[in-house]
Amino acid sequence: MSEVTATDLYEVTMALSYLREDMRAAATFSLFVRELPPERGFLVAAGLEPALDRLARFLVDRSDVEAFARVLGRPVAEVEPLRGLTFDGEVRAVPEGRLVLAGEPLVEVTAPLPQAQLVETCLLSLLCHQTAVASKAARCVLAAGGRPLVDFSLRRAHGPEAGLQAARLCALVGFAGTSNVAAAQRYGIAGTGTMAHSYVEAFPSEEQAFRAFARAHPGPVTLLVDTYDTDRGVATAARVLRELGLGPGCGIRLDSGDLAGQARRARAVLDGAGLTEVQIVASGGLDEYAVAALVRQGAPIDVFATGTKVGVADGAPSLDAAYKLVEYDGRPVMKLSAGRATAPGPKQVFRGPGLRDVIGLANEEPPEGTEPLLRTVMRRGLRVEPPDTLAAARARFEADVALLPEEARRIEAPVAPRPTPSTRLAALTTVVRHRVEARTAASDAP
Amino acid sequence: MSEVTATDLYEVTMALSYLREDMRAAATFSLFVRELPPERGFLVAAGLEPALDRLARFLVDRSDVEAFARVLGRPVAEVEPLRGLTFDGEVRAVPEGRLVLAGEPLVEVTAPLPQAQLVETCLLSLLCHQTAVASKAARCVLAAGGRPLVDFSLRRAHGPEAGLQAARLCALVGFAGTSNVAAAQRYGIAGTGTMAHSYVEAFPSEEQAFRAFARAHPGPVTLLVDTYDTDRGVATAARVLRELGLGPGCGIRLDSGDLAGQARRARAVLDGAGLTEVQIVASGGLDEYAVAALVRQGAPIDVFATGTKVGVADGAPSLDAAYKLVEYDGRPVMKLSAGRATAPGPKQVFRGPGLRDVIGLANEEPPEGTEPLLRTVMRRGLRVEPPDTLAAARARFEADVALLPEEARRIEAPVAPRPTPSTRLAALTTVVRHRVEARTAASDAP
Repeated sequence: MSEVTATDLYEVTMALSYLREDMRAAATFSLFVRELPPERGFLVAAGLEPALDRLARFLVDRSDVEAFARVLGRPVAEVEPLRGLTFDGEVRAVPEGRLVLAGEPLVEVTAPLPQAQLVETCLLSLLCHQTAVASKAARCVLAAGGRPLVDFSLRRAHGPEAGLQAARLCALVGFAGTSNVAAAQRYGIAGTGTMAHSYVEAFPSEEQAFRAFARAHPGPVTLLVDTYDTDRGVATAARVLRELGLGPGCGIRLDSGDLAGQARRARAVLDGAGLTEVQIVASGGLDEYAVAALVRQGAPIDVFATGTKVGVADGAPSLDAAYKLVEYDGRPVMKLSAGRATAPGPKQVFRGPGLRDVIGLANEEPPEGTEPLLRTVMRRGLRVEPPDTLAAARARFEADVALLPEEARRIEAPVAPRPTPSTRLAALTTVVRHRVEARTAASDAP
Repeated sequence: MSEVTATDLYEVTMALSYLREDMRAAATFSLFVRELPPERGFLVAAGLEPALDRLARFLVDRSDVEAFARVLGRPVAEVEPLRGLTFDGEVRAVPEGRLVLAGEPLVEVTAPLPQAQLVETCLLSLLCHQTAVASKAARCVLAAGGRPLVDFSLRRAHGPEAGLQAARLCALVGFAGTSNVAAAQRYGIAGTGTMAHSYVEAFPSEEQAFRAFARAHPGPVTLLVDTYDTDRGVATAARVLRELGLGPGCGIRLDSGDLAGQARRARAVLDGAGLTEVQIVASGGLDEYAVAALVRQGAPIDVFATGTKVGVADGAPSLDAAYKLVEYDGRPVMKLSAGRATAPGPKQVFRGPGLRDVIGLANEEPPEGTEPLLRTVMRRGLRVEPPDTLAAARARFEADVALLPEEARRIEAPVAPRPTPSTRLAALTTVVRHRVEARTAASDAP
């Protein structure tokens, strides 16, 4: 599949029309999330790095033109004007890891109209779900209160590519490792893994399984203890670990049932066997609610493994994101659709203390004591800086989280801060609204 | 990213241990969904075709071995035994499009244990989310009651690859088209698309936008009428279509607000202008609940476009699926984990009338009046039949849906039929449970 054809067909029909009308002036589109989902007190900006990679190599080639023509049912010659089109515009964006709120642009693209339109689907498809997953993972980090988390999401993510991204996003917000080999390799994340129930079942007994695992993997091992009877599994694991002289770096994993109770009993058994350094890893459908409950209950769990629910951004698997034209050829524009009006003009977000943000115009002076969030990351289709690192994104995330008010941090019923429009943005919105309404009314005349 | 490294690390550590212990006997794993999500009265089996493609080309090559070694932090030589491993086992599976219920195997894999284990993550990652998305899309088809649906999910799906699959799965359950160019091209689905609000805003007026679109696209067009004021947009669209002599095959699209009310007023305006053949397309966050409500209200909507909520399988973005060892070296096995016990032995599903299914053993005779669901689709790592077609899968879906009881079909609070275990499966489960419990108790002795 060509990356360029991973697009909604209407981007193609619109671009063809723009070219026909010679509408190649600069257009600015703003990509933002209209409203935060009910269970989110903030969002974590994510997906920008993969999106910039995509834009940098964007090129409509011969095979793309043929695909467009075939799907449109039109002769190739009629689609030929799109051939050779690249992205050579400017991108201003919130770097990955920063927190963003409702209505705040994650990305603003300024480019000749056909280009800026043609990259819409690609940008939405990369940024929306990655921001959704990073935001879910971030809540797990908050819930864990400093205990390490690892990512087990690959098998339930929406395909291998989504799993790869989920592992990266978990690392971005501070997870300590991932089970995903491809992600560990590509992004330099620590690989982590234990054994499955099938492994234990394939041996005549749990004890034989544990011993065989240790034979194959010299050094620390983590043993899955709940295949049959968890308390017995813990006792068996403790005996095997002790007899093999293992301890530090080793762990046992609990994957079902009453995790808090089992962990408490397991801790006592391990400590009783002198295995005070053996860690307890918990998994099995964990999300921020389950992690928070286990922490609240004082469960002696050392590592939380989250999977399914983080990988699919359970609770908010999509965001109400939009990619909206805000200026064309120097003219600010907006839509007025019922309940979905947009604000005109290129924008900037000014971050105030406690995430009291102001959304203003791109060319405004920052209000006193605020910091602009959007940076120019691409000019004439080229990155202006070397690719970002996960460590840098994580540092930004941690710095922003430290500013987050308590009601936005909390797991249950969070309340997100609401950015306010600047005086200049509010004034421009009023002016453009009146202009558009007047024009629409006029065109209604018979 | 190598396909083989898109795996959980523990598959690798387990496979290495199996090879070390010379445990290469045949293992059967069963992939099934434990329980249906609350809002699902059935699931649609999906993802098999891509999964078989993946298995057929499965090969652990040199670069995979190097990646495994790096992530494990071990010398390449220690991982070398995995090199050259392919999948040459047998696969029995429910063909795509058939309905499946809780506990019914979607796929059973029988292969030498290391192979059967190594393909776990790949199978789960392809089958789980595709079955989730197909099941969501199927509910939209039921809700639409025969009116056509089109897929607009690409921009909110979990990445371009997930969007490609979503378009395919929508077509599989009967959608009439997709906005996704890559999917239209690859799977031969009708491409569909209109225009965005940005297109309308880029022109000085709505009317100029509509006329420009028609100039660029001779033949039927669909005009988006809700950028500013929907009623005025409809009037403008009607005027433009009439003046250009367009009608049959054309449409208007409503994307926000009170869709039923707007559609009713739009229909009156269009009909009043003699444009009785111009269709009304509705979009904007639609799912099976919204579609069912619009149908119930008698809204004169001709085509429903669903996107976000279908693409992410909203409401059930993941399924509680498992890939469990059920037999190793001729010995049926099971796990007993609290609340997550599995049933032993290779299985077959016997479909009875009204989806009164019996889950039995693979070597049982089908009960009177039932049909076995799992077919052998791969032997010695090779497909036994040519690749399946979307049309065949759709025909299976339609035939099974016709058998579905009313309480499972309904959109609100559906009740899924519950399969029952056969007498032989129940007996085997009891025997194996006792054997495992006895053994676990014995190993607990000091």
